[in-house]
Amino acid sequence: MREIFEAELQQLGDGLVDMSRLVESAISRAGTALLEADHQLAQDVIASDHEIDKLERELDERCVHLLAQQAPVATDLRIVISALRISATLERMGDLARHVAEVARGRYPAQAVAPAARETFEKMHEAAVHVAGRTSQLLTTRDVELAAEIEQDDDRLDTLHQDTFAAMLALSWSGTAQETIDVTLLGRYYERFGDHAVSVARRITFLVTGDFDTEHAHSRAEV
Amino acid sequence: MREIFEAELQQLGDGLVDMSRLVESAISRAGTALLEADHQLAQDVIASDHEIDKLERELDERCVHLLAQQAPVATDLRIVISALRISATLERMGDLARHVAEVARGRYPAQAVAPAARETFEKMHEAAVHVAGRTSQLLTTRDVELAAEIEQDDDRLDTLHQDTFAAMLALSWSGTAQETIDVTLLGRYYERFGDHAVSVARRITFLVTGDFDTEHAHSRAEV
Repeated sequence: MREIFEAELQQLGDGLVDMSRLVESAISRAGTALLEADHQLAQDVIASDHEIDKLERELDERCVHLLAQQAPVATDLRIVISALRISATLERMGDLARHVAEVARGRYPAQAVAPAARETFEKMHEAAVHVAGRTSQLLTTRDVELAAEIEQDDDRLDTLHQDTFAAMLALSWSGTAQETIDVTLLGRYYERFGDHAVSVARRITFLVTGDFDTEHAHSRAEV
Repeated sequence: MREIFEAELQQLGDGLVDMSRLVESAISRAGTALLEADHQLAQDVIASDHEIDKLERELDERCVHLLAQQAPVATDLRIVISALRISATLERMGDLARHVAEVARGRYPAQAVAPAARETFEKMHEAAVHVAGRTSQLLTTRDVELAAEIEQDDDRLDTLHQDTFAAMLALSWSGTAQETIDVTLLGRYYERFGDHAVSVARRITFLVTGDFDTEHAHSRAEV
C-alpha cells in the first residue's frame, strides 16, 4: 500500500515538473514574441495555454483520487494539498505568459514595448525565464537552496517593475497612451511571474523543511 | 461520526461566509476611499487585509484537519477541496481591494482616477460591490440562481474595463502618465474582482449540481 502511495506521489511530482516545463517554455516564447514582435510565436503561446490547463485538471483529479483512495495524513496529506496549490499557481503563470503574448499579438506589426522601456523588458524577460527555470529545477530536485535564488529573481523583477514606472513618469517619456497602458500591464504580468514562483518555492521549502512559517509567508504571491 | 463531519462542514461553510463578508466590506471601502480620496479609509482597508489572510489560514488548517481526521470521499471530499480553493480566491479578492486602497493612498490628496474615467469607475465600484454581495449570498444560501447574476456582473465589469481603455485611447484623453498608469491598474483590479467571483460561483454551482463542466469552465478566472 505504501509503495503504491509513494509511486503515486512520485507521479504527482512528475506532473508538476511537466507543468512547470510547459510554463517555462511559454514564458520564454511569450517574451521573445514580445521583444521581436513575432506574431506566429505569440499565436503559438496563446494556442498552447490549454495544454497547461489540461495538465492542471489532470493533476487535480489525481490529487482528489489520491485523497479518496489513500486518505493520507500528516506530511503525506500536506504534500497532496501542496500539489493542488502549486498546480493552480503554475496554471496562473501560464495565463500570464498568454497575456504577454496577447499584448504582442495585439500590437503586431508594431512593437508593444515603447523604446524607452525596451531595455527594462529585456531584463525582465531574462529574469522571468531564469525564475521559471529555477522553479522547474526546484520541483525536480527539491533542493531548497534554489528557493533563495528564486527570491532573488523575484526581488530583481520587483526592482525592474519599479523601473518601468520610473521610465513612464520621467519627463522624457514620450510614449502614447497605448504604450503607457501596455508597459503598465506587461510590467505587472512580469512582476507576478516572480510572485508566483516565490509562492511555489515557499511551499516546496515548507514540505522539505517542515517550517510552516515559510509556507504562509507568501503575502507577495497575491491576486 | 457523520454528525461531527456535517457540523465541521457547516463550520467550513460559515468560515467562507465570514471571509466573503470581510472581502465585501474591503471592496466597498476601497472603492469609496478611491472615489472620495479618503486617506483614512484607504489606510483602514490596507490595515485590515491581514484579517482576511488570517481567516484563510484558519480555514485551510480546518480543511487539512478535516481531511486527516475524517478522510472524506466522493462529494464530501470535493466540498473540502472546493473550500480550500474558494478561500484562496477570496483571499486574492481581499488583496485586490488592498491594491485599490493603495492606489488611493498613494495619490492622496489628489484623486487617483482621472476625470474622464471617473464615471466608469463609479460604475465599476457599484458592480464590484454588487458582485461581492452576491458572492456572500451565494455562499450563504447555495442558491445557484445567483451564479447567473454573478456572471452578469462579471460581464458588466468586463465591458466597463473595455470602457477604461476606450477613454484612455480617445483623442480627448488628457490624462498624465500617472493617471494612465492608475486607470490601467485599477481597471485590471476591478476586472479581476469579477473573474474571481465567477470562479467562486462556478465551484459552488458544481458542488450543488454536480455538473463538473461548470467547475472547470473557469478560464476567465485567471490572473
